[in-house]
Amino acid sequence: MNPTVIKSYRSLISKQRKIVEQRIRKVFAKRKPRSLYEPSAYLLESGGKRLRPLLVLLSAKAVGAKFSTAYNAAVAVELLHNFTLVHDDIMDNADKRRGRSTLHKKYDVNTAILAGDSLLSIAYEYLLKDCNGNAKNILASFTNGLVEVCEGQSLDKEFELRNNVSLNKYLDMIRKKTAVMAEMCCSIGAQIGGGTKAEINALETYGRNIGIAFQIQDDLLDIIADEAEFGKVVGGDLIEGKKTFLFIKAFEQAKGEDKKVLFEMILNKGIKRHQVDQYKEIYTRLGILDEAKKSIFHYSDIAVNSLKRLSKNEDREILKWIAYSLVDRIR
Amino acid sequence: MNPTVIKSYRSLISKQRKIVEQRIRKVFAKRKPRSLYEPSAYLLESGGKRLRPLLVLLSAKAVGAKFSTAYNAAVAVELLHNFTLVHDDIMDNADKRRGRSTLHKKYDVNTAILAGDSLLSIAYEYLLKDCNGNAKNILASFTNGLVEVCEGQSLDKEFELRNNVSLNKYLDMIRKKTAVMAEMCCSIGAQIGGGTKAEINALETYGRNIGIAFQIQDDLLDIIADEAEFGKVVGGDLIEGKKTFLFIKAFEQAKGEDKKVLFEMILNKGIKRHQVDQYKEIYTRLGILDEAKKSIFHYSDIAVNSLKRLSKNEDREILKWIAYSLVDRIR
Repeated sequence: MNPTVIKSYRSLISKQRKIVEQRIRKVFAKRKPRSLYEPSAYLLESGGKRLRPLLVLLSAKAVGAKFSTAYNAAVAVELLHNFTLVHDDIMDNADKRRGRSTLHKKYDVNTAILAGDSLLSIAYEYLLKDCNGNAKNILASFTNGLVEVCEGQSLDKEFELRNNVSLNKYLDMIRKKTAVMAEMCCSIGAQIGGGTKAEINALETYGRNIGIAFQIQDDLLDIIADEAEFGKVVGGDLIEGKKTFLFIKAFEQAKGEDKKVLFEMILNKGIKRHQVDQYKEIYTRLGILDEAKKSIFHYSDIAVNSLKRLSKNEDREILKWIAYSLVDRIR
Repeated sequence: MNPTVIKSYRSLISKQRKIVEQRIRKVFAKRKPRSLYEPSAYLLESGGKRLRPLLVLLSAKAVGAKFSTAYNAAVAVELLHNFTLVHDDIMDNADKRRGRSTLHKKYDVNTAILAGDSLLSIAYEYLLKDCNGNAKNILASFTNGLVEVCEGQSLDKEFELRNNVSLNKYLDMIRKKTAVMAEMCCSIGAQIGGGTKAEINALETYGRNIGIAFQIQDDLLDIIADEAEFGKVVGGDLIEGKKTFLFIKAFEQAKGEDKKVLFEMILNKGIKRHQVDQYKEIYTRLGILDEAKKSIFHYSDIAVNSLKRLSKNEDREILKWIAYSLVDRIR
């Protein structure tokens, strides 16, 4: 793509992200009781990429609406996302989130449970502000996203306890846990923007598939990323005993000694840091890293192709760029 | 009231409750994953008075609609109510609920958090089924109920840590924690039933005020109830150190030795069982029990009077009967 165009995309995204940030900062500023809303304000202040709000806004734009039609919905999806983070962090007993203490560590579990519940309630409140006439369908999409996110989280927890998880089951889980949220963001953006059924459908397909691509890429980066740039320990998923796309695929294909080595991670619910290289060698030798890349390209291609069904040419290019930017990190 | 009429009310309520029970049983029967939905099914099976679904149905009827217009909404409010129970039980570290193990005791805290979240998501799903055309307002009422319930719960937790809570603050807390839910049930019932603004408003007033009356009565029954019939330890609130309507009012009015005795409950975060009679004697001597009764009658009268604004005479009488039945337990 033309560097000038890319620059304009970056600047547009940066501008819209700032607007969303300002809106988010206002959500909890004056609400009472402070005992309920201060923890949520603390969480929302801590940044994040705000990818989901941007998907809402760009989807509204992609069907010909102004960004301003969907700012409240953009805030809503970020609140919903943070609701899942707070409760997931309790369940995972995580200490840190975006470099700061998680809510249940800074306060306590009770405060974090209630803050999460409240974030969800305010998410609906904000979403409703941007619904006019078509509230039922928009709310149904949002609610369906929420239902499936809970199901995905439950499956994820279930898989932690299982020895054998098939790749199909894994893909179903990440579809629910990660991809449905991106799909929902694109869907409500398109609906609020007044898109046709075909346009809404195209953007849902786009969101779902970049979501899956994004998750597989996350799994891959855990192994191939540059540690300094990645900001996390390489092989962290293996150390924590997570059954990722890479692991499941490798475990399905491995034989003999390789299979025994891989089974150790399941048995011990994780590996030692010094073993990561051994696992990476197995992944590479079995062609798993290439297969993961192929899958990521596969899903991002589906996403980009679905954009052809949109009529507004100019406004779909930025979504195409986003899809390929995600993939760029592994090229 | 005429005994034959009362009998017909009881039979109508019993019939509608059965229908609601059947609907509730179906909610989780076929959903997957079972790891997510079995805990919710267990909770919902354990009964309860289903008062909130009945308020939805009777409010729809009171504006001239059929019960069948609001069965999904009735299910939705019961799911919402159970969402609050699951999360509250975690926060209160409660072992038992309706005579059975609480969800976080039978399973674990993580399962209970997620089951609660999921109950809320399915509540929205069911509510949406009964929204036609007026989805935005119905969802806004439901959402507002949820927002305020979270605020009420936060205030309740805050009050546990405070030495001094005024009666006004207490009433504000129970309005949010208990009454808003009854108000919301009546509101969405009336809206789904196609009520006019005045009818919706009248039923909201009814719900809110029976909610407050109900909570104060709950506080009162803790002291004056017959232990065998009440099914709980008399004075349980005092033993647990709860700042109820009775306690706050007594503490505001007490002087000298009485004030010192009452302050002990705050200081020690509760009293011993053998002290309950001493507290009851103080309450009685200060006229607190009578004042509580007066308040209960006051709020139930407001509730009943608001029903005069409804046009359908026949269908408002049952709501009047419900309001007075509640109060009857303390007469």
